Amino acid sequence: MSYEVQRYAAGEWTTLPDEVADEEPLQITLDGCPIAVLMRTRGADAELVAGFLITEGILESLEQVRRVDLEQKKNHALVFLKDDVVVDFARLQRNLYSASSCGICGKASIEAICQLVPSLDKVIQLAPEVIIAAPDRLRQAQGLFDQTGGIHAAGLFTVSGALLVAKEDVGRHNAVDKVIGWGLEHGVNMEEVFLQVSGRVSFEIMQKALMVKISTVSAISAPSSLAIDFAKDTGMQLFGFVRKGRFNRYH
Amino acid sequence: MSYEVQRYAAGEWTTLPDEVADEEPLQITLDGCPIAVLMRTRGADAELVAGFLITEGILESLEQVRRVDLEQKKNHALVFLKDDVVVDFARLQRNLYSASSCGICGKASIEAICQLVPSLDKVIQLAPEVIIAAPDRLRQAQGLFDQTGGIHAAGLFTVSGALLVAKEDVGRHNAVDKVIGWGLEHGVNMEEVFLQVSGRVSFEIMQKALMVKISTVSAISAPSSLAIDFAKDTGMQLFGFVRKGRFNRYH
Repeated sequence: MSYEVQRYAAGEWTTLPDEVADEEPLQITLDGCPIAVLMRTRGADAELVAGFLITEGILESLEQVRRVDLEQKKNHALVFLKDDVVVDFARLQRNLYSASSCGICGKASIEAICQLVPSLDKVIQLAPEVIIAAPDRLRQAQGLFDQTGGIHAAGLFTVSGALLVAKEDVGRHNAVDKVIGWGLEHGVNMEEVFLQVSGRVSFEIMQKALMVKISTVSAISAPSSLAIDFAKDTGMQLFGFVRKGRFNRYH
Repeated sequence: MSYEVQRYAAGEWTTLPDEVADEEPLQITLDGCPIAVLMRTRGADAELVAGFLITEGILESLEQVRRVDLEQKKNHALVFLKDDVVVDFARLQRNLYSASSCGICGKASIEAICQLVPSLDKVIQLAPEVIIAAPDRLRQAQGLFDQTGGIHAAGLFTVSGALLVAKEDVGRHNAVDKVIGWGLEHGVNMEEVFLQVSGRVSFEIMQKALMVKISTVSAISAPSSLAIDFAKDTGMQLFGFVRKGRFNRYH
């Protein structure tokens, strides 16, 4: 998907189109019972549903499926099982675990979530130099990455570019939750900081930031389409591809 | 955490220690009700729990928490709320969505899951050249990545190194589910292929592969500690850091 972005490089802002990875929710419903919402890139929904049902142990074989309806409703996969197939929904509930929020679907979900999340009273202003310097500061604070090469980091920075806290985790969302949890416990005014993440920005990271009124998220790598849509709908500020003295402003 | 790995480089195998990102499950229980299991890197559990409860909208403020007990049980966070705090568990259930399997905790979980997943009858043998060539083949098949820079890929390869299918997604697990779903729908013999992923390997990717009897997973980047433990416990084969003619065998 193509988005218009403002690119900052060598002291100049230019507006140009940018290709962004598509991200949309897909709710999987099994004989009328919603079992999961996956944030996915569209294009292979039938395969995704088939793989998910088997690899998560929900079904034993695709032979158990009578029909998968992907057309009935946008971003919904309605799975209908053969008559003799019994799914233990109670066991399913125990075995599926939650890694995030949402539970609602499609474009409507963003609007619905906007009613749940607080609205922003304030969006901070950042000098380009502050945005450009943050990834290196975060990296310097990272102990684990250099050793293992396989870990995400998140940090909270002040408007002047000081790093308040950095945390690492194998899970992108966990690193964000850790710095936000630290900030809450230490009485940080979330309206006066920005969140820097080491990798990509998904919709859920934007949502987590907004829940505590962080107005601005900056990432070393790319945002997803839903992250950009969410920023636009909520008035958040989103920077990406902060590298080598350059970055993009997506909103 | 340090693991012993076999490194292949320039035609030679050497054994050496390798630092691996720590990954363990953390079950969060709210007044006795288990609400989530997060796969996380240990070290900031109190902050992670605080951040998760707020950013997921489960609690409105940390003031509502009476006590968080991290000592009672390994890999468990027991959260106790103040007497006047009421949590709507039914709403919580609707709003938390599942992104993966598991639901069980700690070292015991791996053993418990090993009873749920099939055992391997066969582990394929791969020539080093096949392992080394796979990432480039996967990358060539990737349409979206070059455009957006923000997407994961997974592919199924034959023992001789032929790419059967490649899929992309903003979600690491989704890309894996898509290729496995495709393989199941096309009657691929999963015991005769290996799974190549574009980034890191978590425990859950190993588990998804094993559910359909894929014996071997190979990754461009690092595995987590739990992914290695899982490979050892189940007899799976795990390769990582497949780059520039070199790779590590973790099990």
